[in-house]
Amino acid sequence: MTWSFLRRYARRSERFLIGLMSGTSADGVDAALVRISGSGRATQATVQAHRTTPYSEEMREQIIAVASGYFKTSGISTLNVALGHLFADAAEALLEEAEMPLSMLDAVASHGQTVSHTPWAEPHGATLQIGEAAVIARRLGVPVVSDFRAADVAAGGQGAPLVPYADWCLLTHPTRSRAIQNIGGIANVTYLPARAHPQDVMGFDTGPGNMPIDTAADRLTTGRLHCDLDGRMAALGTIDSDLLVRLLVHPFLRMSPPKSAGREEFGEEFVKPLIDAILARSSPTSARDLITTLTAFTAYSIYDAYRTHLPAMPDEVIVGGGGAHNPTLMRMLRDRFEPISVLTHEDVGIPGDAKEALAFAVLANETLLGSPGNLPAVTGASQRVILGKLTVP
Amino acid sequence: MTWSFLRRYARRSERFLIGLMSGTSADGVDAALVRISGSGRATQATVQAHRTTPYSEEMREQIIAVASGYFKTSGISTLNVALGHLFADAAEALLEEAEMPLSMLDAVASHGQTVSHTPWAEPHGATLQIGEAAVIARRLGVPVVSDFRAADVAAGGQGAPLVPYADWCLLTHPTRSRAIQNIGGIANVTYLPARAHPQDVMGFDTGPGNMPIDTAADRLTTGRLHCDLDGRMAALGTIDSDLLVRLLVHPFLRMSPPKSAGREEFGEEFVKPLIDAILARSSPTSARDLITTLTAFTAYSIYDAYRTHLPAMPDEVIVGGGGAHNPTLMRMLRDRFEPISVLTHEDVGIPGDAKEALAFAVLANETLLGSPGNLPAVTGASQRVILGKLTVP
Repeated sequence: MTWSFLRRYARRSERFLIGLMSGTSADGVDAALVRISGSGRATQATVQAHRTTPYSEEMREQIIAVASGYFKTSGISTLNVALGHLFADAAEALLEEAEMPLSMLDAVASHGQTVSHTPWAEPHGATLQIGEAAVIARRLGVPVVSDFRAADVAAGGQGAPLVPYADWCLLTHPTRSRAIQNIGGIANVTYLPARAHPQDVMGFDTGPGNMPIDTAADRLTTGRLHCDLDGRMAALGTIDSDLLVRLLVHPFLRMSPPKSAGREEFGEEFVKPLIDAILARSSPTSARDLITTLTAFTAYSIYDAYRTHLPAMPDEVIVGGGGAHNPTLMRMLRDRFEPISVLTHEDVGIPGDAKEALAFAVLANETLLGSPGNLPAVTGASQRVILGKLTVP
Repeated sequence: MTWSFLRRYARRSERFLIGLMSGTSADGVDAALVRISGSGRATQATVQAHRTTPYSEEMREQIIAVASGYFKTSGISTLNVALGHLFADAAEALLEEAEMPLSMLDAVASHGQTVSHTPWAEPHGATLQIGEAAVIARRLGVPVVSDFRAADVAAGGQGAPLVPYADWCLLTHPTRSRAIQNIGGIANVTYLPARAHPQDVMGFDTGPGNMPIDTAADRLTTGRLHCDLDGRMAALGTIDSDLLVRLLVHPFLRMSPPKSAGREEFGEEFVKPLIDAILARSSPTSARDLITTLTAFTAYSIYDAYRTHLPAMPDEVIVGGGGAHNPTLMRMLRDRFEPISVLTHEDVGIPGDAKEALAFAVLANETLLGSPGNLPAVTGASQRVILGKLTVP
């Protein structure tokens, strides 16, 4: 293959890419087959098929071992190649499921597996994603864009979040302003004014997502449940307004963006005193009410974040991530945001579970067209840069 | 920058690249500024300037720690970025020395620092070079080709040696067959028949290089000397023919190529019994004669390797690597090969110390022109592949 494929790629009215993503929880590989045309705000992308290939328990343990400490250097090198093969397996399985011949595929976008992310390190920030692109290119016979975060970090950015640019490409509306609200462990928003230019986009962590709810559910059921499945516990309780008011003065919520939260702010340490108070019966709140109140905390903190930090309330909110599967949380968001519409990704034609894999396909499309894919206002980079490394088969 | 630079690159009659290389000894970064035209066997390349930027002792220790065992994953990630900056420093210093404006530079070829190389691993071979290309691209503002070995390993090859392809590009002669003999710790040859096609090229380790000589010099001077500088000790002794005959039946020398040797074959373990015999006065050989005999061992084993494994003796031998700086070794080679000419790289217009950095610039030139850069007969790969990943600023 020669580089002339780049010209052919640019000329094609419709392109097929596979986006491959594995999150820090290291559950498995999310793969999305994406049909894409145009670029930038004119991007049209539809997910043709998507699937999650779970990691084996052994692979997951190895990734977590590498990501959380010391490891044999040769082990990291062989894991890099093993993950390349797993990513290629995931892409092949997806093509088979979609009954899409390999010859129709134009490129693969591989985020890889993050094993270290220290953009704040001195004297130079760093980030490391593994999953050898040369293996994927070799196995699938198409160009691979990989290693999206390094260029943004090299330009002084945090290398994250990168999804807001894809949100801008896909979800900017000609007349309505939108907040794209992802609710994972932590919740984050991309704010897209109507007809936004890239520099108009805002993105930051709004605060708690599912993490406090999941942590409390786990503790209160002594590990029987790892989350409040379908928001069932939250649906049965009532909000403890006094507690909710106390939670909503959390210092993170007052900080101005750009800001990002983690396990430190809303994990064990945050939840423990609340649980302890219930177990010691020194709190009037019941276990069930605590789950309900923490669910409301996530919903209200999102609303407060918009009121405090966005230039204007959006015309609509589009929710994604695990939180979109929690009907109690969704109901609370709708109540709070009324009359602003609170939609899911599915409501705008995007399968929520494939969102990140789709986003990296969109970012690879920009890279293959020679366009930058970061948003300096969001990542803190000194300028817009072309993301990723290109490997050809 | 958009991908159209690839078209401009291909059209340019003359291109300027910087090759960056750091060997496994982790001494520092070799940088070569190369003026290059053509491609494949029509490649014309001249080294305009070259320099070695030594690593600080601290950096060297960190690289060796990473390469030889366990390390913090975040430490590998920050080392990857730190090396990217050191490579960029080396390139900038070279440009300054050469009084070459940055705007004249077309691309950088960065081999990186090998921290793991296990191409024989099961189920998949692996290799890992670090030195973040996104940092180099950002700092110098030109495209960077990096990570040359991964694609060959992904194609089932050893990912090494890669220099033979560059030898073929630069040194194939219209009428004379040539052996390009590198003498590092281990010695290896690239055999180029006259007017060779890529598939005619052979490359393999001939056996001992400087390693047995250096190891013996170090042991016999109890560490006062780390090598036989300028072959001075070897020049004073005489060859012990009985010992030389015994050394030349080493099993490695009888193996058929492809083959590669290491510290296991010709390091401490190989030299120790020879030294012990001298120290116990149970050998008739003097210390000085041992150095002379080991020097002859390297020279003779190269000659024997050609006689045994090459389809025909070359018309000329072109020596490079540290061994080319050992006049005693060069004299022995010339005696042994008479009437075949034994030349140095300098004799054919290539500064020997810049050879590897030059070779990777030549390989990057192939990559940027969309041509493969490995030789399956040499690396064991199942086919020719385009080497490297491309990062644009």
